[in-house]
Amino acid sequence: MTQVRYPDDKRLLVEKALQDFFPPKDNYPELIYKAMRHSLISGGKRFRPVLTLLVAETIGNELIDVMPTACAIECVHTYSLIHDDLPIIDDDEMRRGKPTCHVLFGEDIAVLAGDALFAEAFYLIANKQVVDDPAKIVKVVDELSNASGPKGMVGGQVLDIISAGKKVNLDTLKFIHSHKTGMLISASCRIGAILGGASKEELTAFSNYAEHLGLAFQVTDDILDVVGEEISLGKKPGSDERMQKATYPSILGLKRSKEIAEEAVKNAKIALQDVKKDTSSLANLADFVYCRNK
Amino acid sequence: MTQVRYPDDKRLLVEKALQDFFPPKDNYPELIYKAMRHSLISGGKRFRPVLTLLVAETIGNELIDVMPTACAIECVHTYSLIHDDLPIIDDDEMRRGKPTCHVLFGEDIAVLAGDALFAEAFYLIANKQVVDDPAKIVKVVDELSNASGPKGMVGGQVLDIISAGKKVNLDTLKFIHSHKTGMLISASCRIGAILGGASKEELTAFSNYAEHLGLAFQVTDDILDVVGEEISLGKKPGSDERMQKATYPSILGLKRSKEIAEEAVKNAKIALQDVKKDTSSLANLADFVYCRNK
Repeated sequence: MTQVRYPDDKRLLVEKALQDFFPPKDNYPELIYKAMRHSLISGGKRFRPVLTLLVAETIGNELIDVMPTACAIECVHTYSLIHDDLPIIDDDEMRRGKPTCHVLFGEDIAVLAGDALFAEAFYLIANKQVVDDPAKIVKVVDELSNASGPKGMVGGQVLDIISAGKKVNLDTLKFIHSHKTGMLISASCRIGAILGGASKEELTAFSNYAEHLGLAFQVTDDILDVVGEEISLGKKPGSDERMQKATYPSILGLKRSKEIAEEAVKNAKIALQDVKKDTSSLANLADFVYCRNK
Repeated sequence: MTQVRYPDDKRLLVEKALQDFFPPKDNYPELIYKAMRHSLISGGKRFRPVLTLLVAETIGNELIDVMPTACAIECVHTYSLIHDDLPIIDDDEMRRGKPTCHVLFGEDIAVLAGDALFAEAFYLIANKQVVDDPAKIVKVVDELSNASGPKGMVGGQVLDIISAGKKVNLDTLKFIHSHKTGMLISASCRIGAILGGASKEELTAFSNYAEHLGLAFQVTDDILDVVGEEISLGKKPGSDERMQKATYPSILGLKRSKEIAEEAVKNAKIALQDVKKDTSSLANLADFVYCRNK
């Protein structure tokens, strides 16, 4: 396999848009904006918004600007990290190589910074996203709220918390991963397709792609937590083990986990065959997800 | 003044709709739904959704069903209470006469129950609210996210936290109240008007009404915290004093605070004169807000 490169051009566009939507000035009370910015403007791959941009671009309408919504998805992701990192939940002090929000701003402000980013996500979509048809915005809000609520991200996080320290079977692990991480990745993909005006068949194909991509992402994350280096994770590896959390390697072993991730990448690329457009950037993204651990 | 009655018929409709949207079964993981329901299905006046219903009804289209959105607003209010009650924020153990969410379910689940209700609010609006024009839904999401984020509820709560134990002037107190409580009350009113198809002039009138109503509500709440009884508050009075929080009575005295509340009620009713419909139910609600403390 040739070297797989991350779409850094898209990442930089997201970075710039986030800076524009959340400028470091003229806000009151300043503290909450500082806390939000600390966690939001923190580098990272911007995987979810980049995925949204790539899907919208793949559909072909290059003029469509999905950036407000792409940034909204990053706000939701960031809010979930801030809350997950709290001492009363996962108790992580470092994230993306920086102290976590509560370490710098206190737990009260961290809870509220997460809440504020969640609210801002929907504000960006409703107030800043330009579309030809407002029904698209309604569908986007539907997708994003569903993916981030109790039927999605929160549900997965709760089961993860309940399961910590217990013997967890593969079905439970799959539920945790597909809800805690998978649904927001899937929504990022579907939302790009919805805003881009995908046909019903294309939306189905993108959904299938996203499901496999999400699995590859999660299993690779688990693998990285075992074999990764601190510098590439931005936090100490082994935190899942420390928290006694179930992972693919802990249930199935490292070898089988790698096979599952490889298979998921393959299936993601197969799903793209139903999109009759140039899907090479999305195939490349799937490759990248797995290659992170090499 | 004759006895002012709360619109209990509307409250009961909200109560039933909340029960229907959040049934006590068939949900997984069960724990998060139990925690959400504990805080959501807990009695209370349902002031905000009732206000939404009254405004929509006042505009005259009785067939308009704004219930999913009205319930969404109650979800936002409840989520903010769950987070505010956390030991790392206000540390309240009782709410509406029952143990708060974290007391029964733990702080981790309480944070996530709040998050889940916030997500469900936008899901109810995008997925369950039927409208003639999807642009109305977009406007509702815009209003609600703005009112609940850093420019609204969260901003007020942050300034409240920062100000605790400090000498606070009237401007700061006004900012805290108008953002922490006022903007969601105002949004409840405006959203009812938007969904009901209010004219631009009517929307302005309802906004003015809501601003005065919100002020009356906040000042009366402050007064109740000084003079109220535990049973009517559902929590111990004096909690503002215990938390060293600024209130209208602590800055302006009880007598002047009562005058301000009375004046606000009067102004709310004057604002209604610009709505050329039967606004008696809204005038009555303004009276009720102040009469609570008698």
